[in-house]
Amino acid sequence: MDLHVTLTGSGDLTAQIYAQLREAVLDGRLAGGDRVPATRELAASLRVSRGTVTAAYDRLLAEELLESRRGAGTFVAPGCVPPARSATVRGRRTRPGAVTPSAVWRSPSAPPRVPGDAAYDFSVGVPDASLFPLATWRRIVSGALRRGRLAPDTYDERGAGRLEGEIARYAGVSRSVVASADDVVTTAGAQQALDLVARVLLEPGDVVAVEDPGYTAAARLFTTHRATVRGVPVDGEGIVVDTLPDTARLVYVTPSHQHPTGVAMSRARRIALLEWAVRRDAVIVEDDYDSEFRFADRPLEPLQSIDREGRVVYVGSFSKSLLPSLRVGYAIGPASLTPALREAKRVTSWDGDAVTQRALADFLAEGHHAAHVKRATKVYRARRDELLEGLAGLDEWLEVVPSAAGLHVCTFLRDRGLDDQTIAGDVLAAGVFVEPLSPRHLEQPARHGLAFGVGGIREGEIGTALALLRRVLSAPRRRPRVDG
Amino acid sequence: MDLHVTLTGSGDLTAQIYAQLREAVLDGRLAGGDRVPATRELAASLRVSRGTVTAAYDRLLAEELLESRRGAGTFVAPGCVPPARSATVRGRRTRPGAVTPSAVWRSPSAPPRVPGDAAYDFSVGVPDASLFPLATWRRIVSGALRRGRLAPDTYDERGAGRLEGEIARYAGVSRSVVASADDVVTTAGAQQALDLVARVLLEPGDVVAVEDPGYTAAARLFTTHRATVRGVPVDGEGIVVDTLPDTARLVYVTPSHQHPTGVAMSRARRIALLEWAVRRDAVIVEDDYDSEFRFADRPLEPLQSIDREGRVVYVGSFSKSLLPSLRVGYAIGPASLTPALREAKRVTSWDGDAVTQRALADFLAEGHHAAHVKRATKVYRARRDELLEGLAGLDEWLEVVPSAAGLHVCTFLRDRGLDDQTIAGDVLAAGVFVEPLSPRHLEQPARHGLAFGVGGIREGEIGTALALLRRVLSAPRRRPRVDG
Repeated sequence: MDLHVTLTGSGDLTAQIYAQLREAVLDGRLAGGDRVPATRELAASLRVSRGTVTAAYDRLLAEELLESRRGAGTFVAPGCVPPARSATVRGRRTRPGAVTPSAVWRSPSAPPRVPGDAAYDFSVGVPDASLFPLATWRRIVSGALRRGRLAPDTYDERGAGRLEGEIARYAGVSRSVVASADDVVTTAGAQQALDLVARVLLEPGDVVAVEDPGYTAAARLFTTHRATVRGVPVDGEGIVVDTLPDTARLVYVTPSHQHPTGVAMSRARRIALLEWAVRRDAVIVEDDYDSEFRFADRPLEPLQSIDREGRVVYVGSFSKSLLPSLRVGYAIGPASLTPALREAKRVTSWDGDAVTQRALADFLAEGHHAAHVKRATKVYRARRDELLEGLAGLDEWLEVVPSAAGLHVCTFLRDRGLDDQTIAGDVLAAGVFVEPLSPRHLEQPARHGLAFGVGGIREGEIGTALALLRRVLSAPRRRPRVDG
Repeated sequence: MDLHVTLTGSGDLTAQIYAQLREAVLDGRLAGGDRVPATRELAASLRVSRGTVTAAYDRLLAEELLESRRGAGTFVAPGCVPPARSATVRGRRTRPGAVTPSAVWRSPSAPPRVPGDAAYDFSVGVPDASLFPLATWRRIVSGALRRGRLAPDTYDERGAGRLEGEIARYAGVSRSVVASADDVVTTAGAQQALDLVARVLLEPGDVVAVEDPGYTAAARLFTTHRATVRGVPVDGEGIVVDTLPDTARLVYVTPSHQHPTGVAMSRARRIALLEWAVRRDAVIVEDDYDSEFRFADRPLEPLQSIDREGRVVYVGSFSKSLLPSLRVGYAIGPASLTPALREAKRVTSWDGDAVTQRALADFLAEGHHAAHVKRATKVYRARRDELLEGLAGLDEWLEVVPSAAGLHVCTFLRDRGLDDQTIAGDVLAAGVFVEPLSPRHLEQPARHGLAFGVGGIREGEIGTALALLRRVLSAPRRRPRVDG
C-alpha cells in the first residue's frame, strides 16, 4: 500500500488525513478490499502521533468507508461507494486539456479492419501463432532470465551486440544480404526501422515515393514526418520506375512480395530502380516484407545485395516468421547511415527489451528459427495450394495475382463495376473475413480486389470459406460501385 | 540451413552453384562446421538434376572447402579459410554509402560515461538489479507465455489495455495522478514517452526550455526534432520560472528529484510554473524521474495533479523501480493530446512487447511492484544514510545538495577553482566511479560538482570509496580549472 497523503502546515492533521483517504476511496484510487496502512505505520511515515491517524480512521470506519478485520488490518469496505458514482469517478479522465497536437496528428488514421468473430479469417499480414514453437521459446526466455544477465549485452566499441551479429548472419545466409553486426540496428519491429530511416533522412517537405497500392502504415508514417508522400503505380514487375517523381529523396518498396498485390519485383526493374536512385541521388528503403516464406525456388536477390553504391537501407522483421508481439525488427544501412540510425534508436527509445533480444539471439544461434520457418512454410504451402485451387474455381470473378512468396494471395475483381468493400462487407456478414484492395490505394485510381491471408485460417476450412464467397459473388449485383 | 543460391539462365549451373557456395564460405556467410544442404535436397529446391549439384560439391570437396562426414552429411571444413582472410571478410561492412543523414544526425552525441571495471561504482540513474525479484518475475513471465496468449491484450474501443489500467491505478494511488486507463499511453521507457510528446507537439524551430544543468538525453532528443533548445537555470527550488523564455512552446522538468541536482521543486515554484504555462500557452512535460524512492515523508504532489488546465503531460517509467532493460514507461496526457500520443506510438512502433506488458500488468496487480519498491527503498535508504554520513566528513570540499528522493545525491565543489572532470578522472584511477556535474550543463555557466548514485554500490563499501575520494580532494591542486 503506497498511498499518497500530503500534510500541509500544522492545522487539523486528522481532518487532512481523513479528507485525503476519503477522496481516494470516492474517486476510485482506493477500491473496496484494498488494505490501508496500519495506523502505527502511517503515523510514523507522516511524523504525526498515532492518535492523529487513529482519529481519522475512526471517522472513516464510522462512515463505513473502511472496515476493520480482526488480525488482518483495516480495509476499504467493499461496496462502500454506490456503483453509479464509482463508475463515474473511475472513468474520470484527466482534464480535457488546452493544448492541441500539430496538424498532422489531428486527424487520426482509420483503425485497421479486424476479423472480429468471423468464422473464417483470411487476415493479411498475420502469421499463425499456433505454429510458433512456444515451448522452446519459453525455455529459452526462462534461461535468459535464469542466467540473471539483466543488463543489456555488452556492446563492442562500435555498438553492435550479439543479436545484431546473429541477424547479420541470418540475413547473409538466407537472403544474401551483405552485412556485418556493425551494420545492423535492432528495432521494435519493421515499423520502427522505417521511423528511424525517416528521422535521419527526411527534412520537412521532402518527397517520399511509395508503392500505390501499398503499405498504408508506411505512407502514414512518412506523412507524420512532414514528408510529401507520392503514390507510384505498381504493375506485374513491381513499382513502375519510369513514373517515379524526379524529386523523390526516398523511395519505399517491398520487392519480395509487394504489399498488397504480392508481385515480386523483376530483376530488370530492380536494376532500373538502383540506377534511378544513383541518378537522382535518392535512397531506397527495401522492406523485405514476407520474404521468409517462399513457395518457388529461385528468389531474386534483394536490392541490398546487388546495390554497389550504398543507396539501400534493408529492413526486416521477425513479426511474420515468429510473432508480431515480439516486436523485433532491424535496419541494415550503408555505413554512411548506420551510426545515425543507431543513435536515432538510442536517443528515441534506448535499447529494446534485453531479455527478448537475448532470447532471440539464442533462438537464431541454436537453429530454431530456421527449423520453424521450414516447418511453417510446409503448413502455409498446403493452405496456399488449397487457396489457389479454390480461387481457380472463382476465376469467373477473380483474377489471381501471381506471387512466389508470402502469407497472402491477392486477386483483382474482373468486373470493374464491382466494389471490393461492399463485397468484403457482404462476405463478412456470411462469416468470412477478407481484405478489400481499394483502401490500400493512395492516389492512383483504385483497382478493386480481395486479398486472402493464410495465417488465420486452417487447411480444410478454405474451401468452405470460398464457397461462401462464391455465393456473394454470384448474387445479383445490388449496389453499383461509386468511384470517389 | 537456409542458403540463398540464385541460378540465372541455363549456362553452367554447376559452376554457378559452386561459385556461390564458395563465395559464401570465403566471405564468412558460411562458417567452418556449418552443414550444407544434402545434394538431393538442394537439387530439388533449385529444380536441377542431382548430378549438377554433386559436381559442384565435388569441386568444393576437392578444394577442401567442404568436408563429408559419413552418415552426417556435408559440412563447411573448419579452418578452410585462413584466419587473416576470414577476419577481413567477416568484418566486411556494407558499402560505405553515398547517402548522408540530415545535419542534426551528423555529429553524434558523446557516449555516456561508464564505470568500466571500477571497484566502487557511484553510477547515477542505475538501480541495483540484484534487488529485483527475479524469481517472481520469471514465474510471471513464464505464466504469461504458458497461457499462450500471444496476441496483444484486446483493446477496448478507446484503445487502452490492461497494463494501461494498472498504470493509471498505480500512478493514482502512489502519486495522486489523475488518470483513467484511457489517459495512459505505454511506451518503451520514459525516453520514448518524451519522443512521442515531441513528435505530436513540436514544429521545427519551436522553442523548448529545459533545466540547466539537466537531463542531456532529453535535450538531445528535442534537438533532433529540430527544436531550439534553451537551458534555464535551476536553484534550490527547481527551475527558475522567471527566466523561462517567453516563446517556449514546451518546458521539460523533473520536479520530484531534479536531474542531476536532486532538488525537489517547491510548491510555490510548481504553481508559478503552471501559471506561466497558462499565460504563455505552453505545455509542461513533467518527468517524474526518481520519484519512487522517497526518504522524506511528505512528497509534493506532481504538477499533473494540481494542474486544472490540462497543460501537463506526466511521464513515468519502471526503469528505476524495476529494471532499465524492461523498457516500459508511460505518458499520461490531457485528453486533448492522448489520442495523438497513442497514434504516434502506433504509427511509429505499434505496441510494445506483449509478453512483457502482460507480465508487468500481473506484477502490478498482484502487488509485487509495491512490495519491491518498499524493500528496495529500505536498502537504498541505508546506502544513502551511509553516503550522507561520509559526505559530511568531506564537507570541507563538497556541499551536499539537499534532496528527499531518488537514487543519487548531488554535491557542489566548494572551491570554484576545481574542475569536476579532472577530479572524476583522478578518482576513477583510484578505482572509484563518480559522475561530474559540469557536463550536464547546456548553456548556463557550469557549476562544478560530483554526483553519487547508490544503485551500483553496496552498504559498507561507501566509506572506503569516499576515503579514496578524500585523498584525491586533499591532494595539492595540480591542474587549475580552465573555464571554456
